[in-house]
Amino acid sequence: MKNFIEPIEKLIGEFSRLPGVGKKTATRYAYKIINMKEEDVQSFASSMLKAKQNVHFCKICGNWTDEEICDICKKNNQKIICVVEEPKDILAMEKVKDFGGTYHVLHGLLDPLNGKGPDDISIKPLLERISKNDVQEVIMATNPTVEGEATALYIAKLLKNLGVKVSRIAQGVSLGTDIEYVDEVTLTRAILDRKEL
Amino acid sequence: MKNFIEPIEKLIGEFSRLPGVGKKTATRYAYKIINMKEEDVQSFASSMLKAKQNVHFCKICGNWTDEEICDICKKNNQKIICVVEEPKDILAMEKVKDFGGTYHVLHGLLDPLNGKGPDDISIKPLLERISKNDVQEVIMATNPTVEGEATALYIAKLLKNLGVKVSRIAQGVSLGTDIEYVDEVTLTRAILDRKEL
Repeated sequence: MKNFIEPIEKLIGEFSRLPGVGKKTATRYAYKIINMKEEDVQSFASSMLKAKQNVHFCKICGNWTDEEICDICKKNNQKIICVVEEPKDILAMEKVKDFGGTYHVLHGLLDPLNGKGPDDISIKPLLERISKNDVQEVIMATNPTVEGEATALYIAKLLKNLGVKVSRIAQGVSLGTDIEYVDEVTLTRAILDRKEL
Repeated sequence: MKNFIEPIEKLIGEFSRLPGVGKKTATRYAYKIINMKEEDVQSFASSMLKAKQNVHFCKICGNWTDEEICDICKKNNQKIICVVEEPKDILAMEKVKDFGGTYHVLHGLLDPLNGKGPDDISIKPLLERISKNDVQEVIMATNPTVEGEATALYIAKLLKNLGVKVSRIAQGVSLGTDIEYVDEVTLTRAILDRKEL
């Protein structure tokens, strides 16, 4: 006989689509849903739909928003643009107090081996933004991976032709780590970029 | 400023209600939902509601079912009843091939310290089932915890007065474990209940 009745089996299947959720965890979640009050399940289901239906990309920067333009673009300085890969990177960057600039989300990185070229990520809108506003500086905050570095360098080259100042977030040892455990690539970079005291 | 826009914040709150899900995991789940296709989110939300609305307790045994009587009660032998704490215990027990009996879900355990007495769990329906059918044996498969043991003993006493054969699942070392790591209570029980070879 099959293990679960159909409505539970189906719900377990849906939960299994969430990142990092296997069948056991999905089963726990499904049982939790069945044990919740009906109005709570209804509110859960409707928040899910509402989030999907009302959240879209900000027209300017590509961040998630439920309005036309996101709160950051409304308030912050449009002359400093920090370029990130995904909207969730903005959350991390926003923890930096007093940044005050705006963002630009690429929605991906250059990855020629997987067929992702400059037209597949949001580079053109960035160039348009820069030509429209009098942008002073663009900070590349893509991940320090091969693709992140390549994308940062590619965009930096384009922007230098436009005469815009481009910078890259510093790379080195993280605060609070043990030098003993730092990988050699990071350590090499940390030594190359050493600062005089 | 707040970290998330309202629809995402709300969805994260809902996901945080799932067992073992903290804010970080809930955020990952929420982003996954926003990145899913709208029809997929709709199907997810509707499976959630359907599972909640269509799944209820089997009239006979208290297992989850979407019909009046669950598949196990329909097919299996009503003269052998295995008593468990929760519907999910039935799933585990059903992996035992050739059991062929039916179940009875207590939906809780006796726990006087937390104000849970015999009337708070499904003992009365069990007694009714036994007096209606000609039950041959009742197997107590509550968890081997203090409350599980106490509940098993309490029900066993009631049933013996009715002249029903009552048994308890065997306790001892689990198959495949290292004796070295087995706790002393389990080991004591394993020695007390030793079997002649």
